[in-house]
This record gives sequence, C-alpha cells and structure tokens, in this order.
Amino acid sequence: MDKPYRPQLSNAARPATFTVPAVDEHGAEVPTAIAGEHPLTLYVDKREIVTLMTLGGAPEALAIGYLRNQRLVQELEDIVSVQVDWETDAVAVTTRDGLGAQEQRMAKRTVTTGCGQGTVFGDLMEEIDGIRLRDDVILTRDTLYALLDNVRRHDTIYKQSGAIHGCALARGSEILYFVEDVGRHNAVDAIAGLMWLDRVEGSDKIFYTTGRLTSEMVIKSAQMGIPFLVSRSGLTKMGHDVAQRIGMTMFGRATNKHYLLFTGAQRFRP
Amino acid sequence: MDKPYRPQLSNAARPATFTVPAVDEHGAEVPTAIAGEHPLTLYVDKREIVTLMTLGGAPEALAIGYLRNQRLVQELEDIVSVQVDWETDAVAVTTRDGLGAQEQRMAKRTVTTGCGQGTVFGDLMEEIDGIRLRDDVILTRDTLYALLDNVRRHDTIYKQSGAIHGCALARGSEILYFVEDVGRHNAVDAIAGLMWLDRVEGSDKIFYTTGRLTSEMVIKSAQMGIPFLVSRSGLTKMGHDVAQRIGMTMFGRATNKHYLLFTGAQRFRP
Repeated sequence: MDKPYRPQLSNAARPATFTVPAVDEHGAEVPTAIAGEHPLTLYVDKREIVTLMTLGGAPEALAIGYLRNQRLVQELEDIVSVQVDWETDAVAVTTRDGLGAQEQRMAKRTVTTGCGQGTVFGDLMEEIDGIRLRDDVILTRDTLYALLDNVRRHDTIYKQSGAIHGCALARGSEILYFVEDVGRHNAVDAIAGLMWLDRVEGSDKIFYTTGRLTSEMVIKSAQMGIPFLVSRSGLTKMGHDVAQRIGMTMFGRATNKHYLLFTGAQRFRP
Repeated sequence: MDKPYRPQLSNAARPATFTVPAVDEHGAEVPTAIAGEHPLTLYVDKREIVTLMTLGGAPEALAIGYLRNQRLVQELEDIVSVQVDWETDAVAVTTRDGLGAQEQRMAKRTVTTGCGQGTVFGDLMEEIDGIRLRDDVILTRDTLYALLDNVRRHDTIYKQSGAIHGCALARGSEILYFVEDVGRHNAVDAIAGLMWLDRVEGSDKIFYTTGRLTSEMVIKSAQMGIPFLVSRSGLTKMGHDVAQRIGMTMFGRATNKHYLLFTGAQRFRP
C-alpha cells in the first residue's frame, strides 16, 4: 500500500518552559518555570499571512491546522512543505497551486481575525448550518470518567508553569493527541493539523479542552466533525447556543467524577 | 471650571449572565449561570473595523479603549459619539476628522490582529522601547495584600459562571475599575476606555488581572504607563522578557498572602 501523502516538514519544536528567578512573600528566591511564548510569522508562498504567538511545541502542525481551520487550504495535498525557522521566527509554507481563490476571502477576512477580538465569526456561522454531526456514536459515563482520569495523569506543562491551555483529541478514553499552547486557538489548530497529517477523522472522537467553551471553540470542533466536546471550565452563552443548534454533546466543569451535561444528551449514556 | 470633554455615549450594557439547564453526574437538573457572549461589530465613520466577541458589560468603553490601544485614535477629543445597538450587534463610532493617516497603518495591520493568533505585535514592540515607566512610585507589601483582599471580596461574574477574565485598575488598594469579559483583551481595552473617559492617568496605578501575563498584556499595561502589574495566574517567557526590558514591577501567582515577584523589585517594599 502506498504511504499517504505527507508534506515536507521541519521538526522545530521549542523547549516548553524556561526557568526565571522570582522572590516569594517570604523573601525566598524561587526559580520558577514559565511557559515559552514566541512570535511565529506565517508565510504562504512568501506572502505574510499572520503572526501567531505560540509555545512552539508543534509549530508545523500549528501552521497546517491554522490554514485548515481558516479554510485557506482545502486539503493536505495542496501543501508541499512547511519549514519553521526560529532564527527568523518564521514558518514558510509552500503550496502546490497558491492560495488562489482564497486570496479574495482573505482580503475580506483580515478585518475580522482574532480571539475574543475579531474572529472569522461571520463566515464560520454561515458554515455551521451545513454541518451534520454523527448521531450513531455514543459516550458512556464510564468512558468519560476514564478519559478525565487519563487527562489528569497526563504530564502537562500547565502543571509546571500555568499560563497555558491544553487540548486533547480522544478515541473513547484514549488520548490520541495532547497539545498545549499559550493561546487556546493555537492548541486546537495544532490538533487540526495533526489530524490532517495522520488522516484522523473527527466524527467519532471526543475533544477535550482545559479552556472555556466560547462560540469559537464550539465552532472549530464542529468544523472538524467532532460530536463530543468536554471542558474543565465553564461556557459562554454563544458557545451554548451554537452547540444546541448543531446538537453537539457538550460537557462543562468536567473533572474527576463531576460534570455538567449541557446539550446533546442523546449521545450520552449516564 | 469647564467639565472635561465627553463624547456622546449610548448606555447599552447587556445582562452579564444567562441561566441554562444542565444535568450533573447524579442526574440532577442544575440550572447553571453562564456568561454572556455577543458579537459586536465596530464601525468607525461607517467603515467596518473588527468584530469583538464580548460579554457586553461596558461596550462603549470597550469600543473607545480598542481604538485607543490599537492607536487608531490619538485622543478622546477625536471621538464625537459612540452608539451601541444590540439589535444589529453593532457599535457606531463617529470621529471628528476620520481616521485619516491611520487607515494606512490599518491596512498593514489587518493581517496581524488577534490574540495568541496575530496581534499588532510588531508595531507594539517598536513602541515599547519609547516607554518610560515612573520610578518614583512605590508599592508596599501591605498595600498589595489589601488590594488582593479587595479583589477577593469583589462580587464577580466569574464566581457565578466562570468562563470569564477580570481586570482591575487600582490606586493603592482601592479598586477604581473592575471589568470582566469573555476575552481578556476586551477587559483591558474597556479599562483603557474608562481611563480616557475619566481622565485617569496610569503612571501611579496598579493593573490587576485574573489572566495570564503574556507579552500582549504586559505591552498594553506599559502603553498605559502603568508601572505595576499583578496577576493571579502565571506568565510567559515573552511577558517576562518585555517586563524586564522596560523595568515593570510584575507579580504572578498573587492571591491571599502569596505572590511571586518577577521583575522591577526597585518599586516594591516587602
């Protein structure tokens, strides 16, 4: 069997934490691990697209997932290579045929990118109504608890340094990917990139995040076709509205053996 | 004495929380307060600038502070009116003379807006080196503890619903403003807007945030001339680098009678 196509990738992960001096309330010197944060400017065919502030743990997957989630690239085969160079804080993506028709959309989109500030919200909402999540997949309470336990045992940068968001993609209770970043959109984009690279499909998976379930997180999960969304944190009204509209099974405040099920009860067996 | 200039403002705060049904791990129905989240599209002189996802608690101040922090408007007197209309999820800002020379910058900037993803980072870093924070202001440990205690007592939406970031501007231990939002950049921008409206100067103030001290938070505080930055959370390497470069007095993990002092010890009396 032919191996599936894979772009040429650099392998340029950065160290996740750095130790800096600090002084605590007792006057004691406390060397403290803090999370890395690096600007990474994304160029597609030498054209500057965006500067991402990232932990740098999976920069190639981040670049690919960003282009995927922003709908700038339609399929992995359009990407020839992804080369990260930390000397210049740049990632150069070469495409097969250029972004082409996407440039038009980009021109429109550039005034509305961001996080809390901006976002591709208008476009995303249009897309939402075309999404159908699978309804023949089930999550049991025991599997949810086992997943939360696996997340808890997972060795995280957060435990060392805080100031970080974590996302995981799981098949049942098994964690397939766990990505942390200083921005939660980066973490979810990196997972989208890894899923593309490995041909992992979302329709029977669970997306876990330490972060808040805002509209954008719900929309990005839905775009990947993922029917289950689990967060350790709370949610916002618009996140709730979107999840309800597309029938996503969404849990908040999920930790240890606690959770709140907000929407999509039809896929859950308590 | 003449009253200081104030633009015409609507007064269109939205409810902070909404109650939605949820089911907990015991099968009990648990009506749960969740934070509001609303798109708010900012128009300046009828030109669309950005869509902000916001809690909507201080939308007029948010619009003003966004324009201030993005350097799109140079002084409050340039703004004639700020009208929020939740029927259309829009805020219309009318300026005295238009954005003029700023339009050029904006065109350049639009590919690099965001949070974790994007940001006006390049421009901001250039500006940083021109900032001088006051060195004749002192914070004592007792004042820091009193401030943390005041923050703790403050009635917050976070306590009800989570999924929210809070920022405060303080004079000593006195909280002047406390703004919460679903995006922490919105909270800091709204405070910048309130400071402009009330002619409150930053050079002897303390900025408190529940959120992480990333480079952008440090830069925005520095732009407002604020020498003290206090966070309940952790920090990132670039936040640390920037704070060190400009000599900001920065505390992380500050809660109850605990803190870690990372930079700028010259202004602190433990």
